[in-house]
Amino acid sequence: MEQRVTLITLGVADLNRSRDFYERLGWRRSMAKAEGIVFFQLGGMAFSLYPRDKLAEDANVASEGRGFSGMTLAYNTRTREEVDSVLLQAAAAGAEILKPAKEAFWGGYSGYFADPDGFLWEIAWNPSFQIAEDGSVRIPD
Amino acid sequence: MEQRVTLITLGVADLNRSRDFYERLGWRRSMAKAEGIVFFQLGGMAFSLYPRDKLAEDANVASEGRGFSGMTLAYNTRTREEVDSVLLQAAAAGAEILKPAKEAFWGGYSGYFADPDGFLWEIAWNPSFQIAEDGSVRIPD
Repeated sequence: MEQRVTLITLGVADLNRSRDFYERLGWRRSMAKAEGIVFFQLGGMAFSLYPRDKLAEDANVASEGRGFSGMTLAYNTRTREEVDSVLLQAAAAGAEILKPAKEAFWGGYSGYFADPDGFLWEIAWNPSFQIAEDGSVRIPD
Repeated sequence: MEQRVTLITLGVADLNRSRDFYERLGWRRSMAKAEGIVFFQLGGMAFSLYPRDKLAEDANVASEGRGFSGMTLAYNTRTREEVDSVLLQAAAAGAEILKPAKEAFWGGYSGYFADPDGFLWEIAWNPSFQIAEDGSVRIPD
């Protein structure tokens, strides 16, 4: 198994609501004609929104679940100031701000928002994670 | 907010158990000296393992939760045959096979496994998603 992820899929309660939310963040869909699923190209990978019950069915698991999903997604900014502006943008798009940005114990600055289904996004500035012009990141050795 | 994800973090019950699992899949850590967190470089992004309770605390949410997390990760293979071999490799590494590979309604071939904490991985061959030599994928227009 090569060391990569092709696709992150969020199982959502309302596909249109979630699509609108991510579009309000400034994202643009790929395969806009696809029905019943929403795709976004993210760098060299894909991100999709799919109905939660269908996603559970596809994975052959029960769709019930509640509380902390155990997984977070992080978006690293290029500057410290950008953390606050992205959190403001997310709040304006309808996100719940779970944690306003503050200094992090690891030397950066970060906050969290929840998307319409409660998926957690950390918005972080990490001075030791350089974001390349194309948006990619390289973990230091 | 640019259209990208920097980092996927899985909140795990036992950091060493999960690190060993992903290493048995053939993955190699970055920042091997980091304590209390495990990083893997995945293409232009990062993947980390972190204790579940600490991840919830960092996000300012309660750590309780059970059932379907609502999120899946997918690994797309380069060939149809590779789906079966990756699932075999995952089972040998200690994964639970939730769904043996079968023909998918969207024209591909896919199955699912659960990692030690129940995080869901779809292993899929999708004839319309080309995997580039560097592991990146481009969603068709």
